[in-house]
Amino acid sequence: MISVDAARARIVAAMHPTRAESISLAQGWGRVLAAPLLARLTQPPADISAMDGYALRAADGVAGAKLRVVGVAPAGHPFAGAVAPGEAVRLFTGSFVPPGADTVLMQENATAVDGVITLHEAARRGRHIRPMGQDFAAGDVLLGAGQRLSARDIGLAAAANQPWLHVHRRPVVAILATGDEISWPGEQVRPGGVVCSNAHALAALVASLGAQPVVLPIAGDDMGAIAAGADAARGADLLVTTGGASVGDHDLVQPALAARGLTLDFWKIAMRPGKPLMFGRMAELPVLGLPGNPVSAYVCAVLFLRPAIERLSGLPGDAPRLEPAILGAALPANDAREDYVRGSLRADARGWVVTAFPVQDSGMLGTLARAGALIRRQPHQPAQAAGEPVEILRLED
Amino acid sequence: MISVDAARARIVAAMHPTRAESISLAQGWGRVLAAPLLARLTQPPADISAMDGYALRAADGVAGAKLRVVGVAPAGHPFAGAVAPGEAVRLFTGSFVPPGADTVLMQENATAVDGVITLHEAARRGRHIRPMGQDFAAGDVLLGAGQRLSARDIGLAAAANQPWLHVHRRPVVAILATGDEISWPGEQVRPGGVVCSNAHALAALVASLGAQPVVLPIAGDDMGAIAAGADAARGADLLVTTGGASVGDHDLVQPALAARGLTLDFWKIAMRPGKPLMFGRMAELPVLGLPGNPVSAYVCAVLFLRPAIERLSGLPGDAPRLEPAILGAALPANDAREDYVRGSLRADARGWVVTAFPVQDSGMLGTLARAGALIRRQPHQPAQAAGEPVEILRLED
Repeated sequence: MISVDAARARIVAAMHPTRAESISLAQGWGRVLAAPLLARLTQPPADISAMDGYALRAADGVAGAKLRVVGVAPAGHPFAGAVAPGEAVRLFTGSFVPPGADTVLMQENATAVDGVITLHEAARRGRHIRPMGQDFAAGDVLLGAGQRLSARDIGLAAAANQPWLHVHRRPVVAILATGDEISWPGEQVRPGGVVCSNAHALAALVASLGAQPVVLPIAGDDMGAIAAGADAARGADLLVTTGGASVGDHDLVQPALAARGLTLDFWKIAMRPGKPLMFGRMAELPVLGLPGNPVSAYVCAVLFLRPAIERLSGLPGDAPRLEPAILGAALPANDAREDYVRGSLRADARGWVVTAFPVQDSGMLGTLARAGALIRRQPHQPAQAAGEPVEILRLED
Repeated sequence: MISVDAARARIVAAMHPTRAESISLAQGWGRVLAAPLLARLTQPPADISAMDGYALRAADGVAGAKLRVVGVAPAGHPFAGAVAPGEAVRLFTGSFVPPGADTVLMQENATAVDGVITLHEAARRGRHIRPMGQDFAAGDVLLGAGQRLSARDIGLAAAANQPWLHVHRRPVVAILATGDEISWPGEQVRPGGVVCSNAHALAALVASLGAQPVVLPIAGDDMGAIAAGADAARGADLLVTTGGASVGDHDLVQPALAARGLTLDFWKIAMRPGKPLMFGRMAELPVLGLPGNPVSAYVCAVLFLRPAIERLSGLPGDAPRLEPAILGAALPANDAREDYVRGSLRADARGWVVTAFPVQDSGMLGTLARAGALIRRQPHQPAQAAGEPVEILRLED
């Protein structure tokens, strides 16, 4: 058995970021840049006004002065001439500041009568002017490769005049649920059967990470069916299986994939829930075998599948970020396995307060859905009282 | 001028959640339930084994006892008979516990030879059994109306045997950028012009919230063009304009929409960045007029457009959640307007530390893209030193 950290490191190291594709800026939200994004222009392209007001020479800008308005320059319509002593040009937010002028007076601070303005207050050189290139200059690297694009980044790329983005392709993640007992939602459940919840929960998680899930038909507990499922995953960037990953009499995933050339990396991990976690490779295709229990499968997906997909997407694939919290109720001592305890989360004046659910059965999806966080407990961690600090992993909403 | 809170409350109160549609479970991630989701079955449907092992009668379960294995019941293949005294049935995780048995012994705790197991330890009644209905019972409300579906919720709905979901339709948000000076990315920028960054940044934000953006063609500073843009938005759930929302000589959005029957609710708000924020209604269509400055437009979108879209989606449309942080550098006293200061964010042992960028110009998209949070400063808030507590609004990655 290996540790959670060692397992994640080995999984992430085996992932190769997908190659690049060129997409429209309009499709770029959430995608990961495969190349640095450069500014194609300088912004602002000239000194521009930050206010509605008047461009003038600071030397003329004394309270009570009267200046002749020689032109109007709306944003997008620069004034053709220059501002001479004793003159002003009417400007608006975004207007170019005309040559000769070196300050902008807010419109509230002047009175205009018959083409002449009277200043109510002194003007200061450079005031209300956004200097050329204040935001960025042509050729500047605005966003680095390996960065996931936020809405703000899309705005920045647009402002930089980039209609196309070069991003990593969405990783394709094939999902193969195995087991004689499972059926798809809405189908007749056979006696002793259970509805497959893992495949679509994992597909939703995969989609939420910006990857493309492919849900394969369920494979029963049959070597041929499982091997055929694995064949159907060729061309994907990652194959995820659920169930049958241990070595019980009915755990057929390992032998079925071995018949297709699986090279096993590891298949047991010192954690709870989720001990039977398998990782290996079939030729070019990495294979992550998750437990069949829905809670175990989800927790393992958060800890291992998420960083794997992030790495495939061109991101680092870091460990999930743990946050500090305090315990709302006592916890007993932990055993030798790293434990991820489901709990409810609330905020109070001390920060996050997390309270473990009394029943931690790894089959209980209702409890998992209501959980706000996982409490991470180190191997052999002693008992902890209410109020003691712990580390939590907040779950997506 | 009205306050930020009053403005948001008026905007949210004017939004009506979209009607329901029925979609596949496989498309459900991130959608908002329009009706409660009920369990269509009981889970587990019977007492099931939580381990690979043996079902037996606890009365027989003393260390050293020898029991005859009368059958094997893999998950999905229940044992047809019952377990009599002196007997055991081989089970696997998820197998039904056969009638007669009331405990499960882990396989590691017995040795099997020639169809007889010898127990290494005593069995305890109910041990390693997941009782029928432990997770949920048929008819239970598992998820409430108005809840946004997580990956875990999708798993829960699947486990409850629900192939369809009844969710609010994605709100359609039309986005109309106005201004003579703006052009689309990649087009020739006219002298004095600037590339439109607001429309696609807003479209990305809209999409990130699960709504459907419609980016309308740019309307120049022309009453007819703006009115035609508004006409093109009919049928949407919300029209968002950018630019021209103030009352300067070239701010034509209000008069252009007034000519199409706009009922104005308010158009000025006591905040920075973003004073000129307009809200009203053209017949059934709510209209939110955002400032033209990209930073102002984005901050106003986070504060007002996001709750509006959430409300349209069937969520409450609450105020953005502010979190505690401490200042990394001093801030001067604030004036009468609520201020949202862009800053960089880092975590240390004290929690979040936020440091305001020295230049807060509302035209600077590069700074905005690098910001980790907005620092919320109350009207007339006194100067604050490094280390003092503040409230922050963390920005999406």
